[in-house]
Amino acid sequence: MQSGGCTNVLNSSLFGIVSEAADAGAFGRVHGASHGLEGLLEGKTVDLTDVPQATWRRIARSPGAALGSTRRKLTPDDVPIVLGRLAALSIGYWFIIGGNDSAETGHTLSVEATKAGYDLTVVNVPKTIDNDLVMTDHCPGYGSAARFVALAAMGAGADAEAMGAASPITIQEVMGRDTGWLAAAAALGRREERDAPHVICLPETPVDEDRFVAQIEAAYTRFGFAVAVVSENARSANGVLGGQCEPWFVDDFGHPYYDGPARYLAGLVSKRLSVRTRYE
Amino acid sequence: MQSGGCTNVLNSSLFGIVSEAADAGAFGRVHGASHGLEGLLEGKTVDLTDVPQATWRRIARSPGAALGSTRRKLTPDDVPIVLGRLAALSIGYWFIIGGNDSAETGHTLSVEATKAGYDLTVVNVPKTIDNDLVMTDHCPGYGSAARFVALAAMGAGADAEAMGAASPITIQEVMGRDTGWLAAAAALGRREERDAPHVICLPETPVDEDRFVAQIEAAYTRFGFAVAVVSENARSANGVLGGQCEPWFVDDFGHPYYDGPARYLAGLVSKRLSVRTRYE
Repeated sequence: MQSGGCTNVLNSSLFGIVSEAADAGAFGRVHGASHGLEGLLEGKTVDLTDVPQATWRRIARSPGAALGSTRRKLTPDDVPIVLGRLAALSIGYWFIIGGNDSAETGHTLSVEATKAGYDLTVVNVPKTIDNDLVMTDHCPGYGSAARFVALAAMGAGADAEAMGAASPITIQEVMGRDTGWLAAAAALGRREERDAPHVICLPETPVDEDRFVAQIEAAYTRFGFAVAVVSENARSANGVLGGQCEPWFVDDFGHPYYDGPARYLAGLVSKRLSVRTRYE
Repeated sequence: MQSGGCTNVLNSSLFGIVSEAADAGAFGRVHGASHGLEGLLEGKTVDLTDVPQATWRRIARSPGAALGSTRRKLTPDDVPIVLGRLAALSIGYWFIIGGNDSAETGHTLSVEATKAGYDLTVVNVPKTIDNDLVMTDHCPGYGSAARFVALAAMGAGADAEAMGAASPITIQEVMGRDTGWLAAAAALGRREERDAPHVICLPETPVDEDRFVAQIEAAYTRFGFAVAVVSENARSANGVLGGQCEPWFVDDFGHPYYDGPARYLAGLVSKRLSVRTRYE
């Protein structure tokens, strides 16, 4: 089952699980749920046992999620239905490729299966590139995402430095809900003081707007350009960053989605320093 | 001289010019202006004649602009100063790597040099990846930019399709001031009706907001997901797209910079269809 926001690792992990299982002759048949929990509840599954190797090789390198993903939240009413669907297919091992919410779903169903006397092993395959799992050396996909972020910061620095007075400041926003590993990875390309990024904002530490602008100004004054990298969830001490009062979209669970902090911070720097500031 | 917004082609073209000239033994010495017209006016130039090959190979593959770029506009007062700087270095051939504004600067100075009896050949090396030059088969960098855009649209399609109901619509914004070649290139990865992008907005054709939402809705209803690609300068029939009343930044020339159209259109679709809509 694949679940949550798409990254390439959803398909790489699916391929890894199925091919290792096939090589080991570990399972009888392998079934995939269509659009995760959503499909499983409706009985929409795909038999993956005889998918040809050539197809698997294409899937492994494809974006998206070959089985289809979802953000469906598990409800208590779902539990017996899910266990019934799994039993009908004689599922003994259930691999859930997904993020935090998917792992929670897996945990709940593992506990419920035990209660119901159903012998089910649930294996969570972390999808998150945020690298936010304790006891895990690194999450699948984190390495390549970190490399991308480091290169993006180096590129933004080279561009901002080259543009000089015409467009000297850039704010880059990167993923990372509760941990700043990805934003922090932007520093990996730094060799000297003048190298980008000059400021990094992590979700773990509240952003002080005055201090942020002062740090950008200091780098700009010293080097003639400045680059900041901010986590998507960088917040001020009292919640969302100023100006983000109206949510962009509210989903079925009532979760509000706001503009990212880069746009707001770029506007702030732009106004305070009267210098063109890009965000991306 | 390098000029205008940074793309990798600024450095590739610089390397191409200098290495071809060196191989041909065409010139005595080669000088580069620091931050384009800005540096040239202040007499800030760099002698590039003896830069080692290893350095050139690194420059050719670097982002930014090795000499430094600028957006300095030529004024009538600048003309005698620039011609004086060029004469002091005995410049007979002047290569300007840049976009439309840089080409205009080159043209003006070529005309003025002739008037002043100075034998100067000005060569414009187009930097634009917009591919907007008449009589040019394609502009340097257009090919790789077009490939990137096509792959980005394919990726957005795979993600949106995989996410299904959770996040089925994406609006991608791509470069292109007056011509839509880059946005149009997003169609290069399409093989079937259901493939992304389902809507493309070019700067040449005004965006009708109702029609845009209707086209997105039609694709969403039919395929379960939808992707639109819009040029950064996609506009409505009466100017900027609704909601973009306040410029983001106003530069020294009084040019206003607005939010791109993707953000506005994503908000519009999000509200009208009550479906989560991403923009990037």
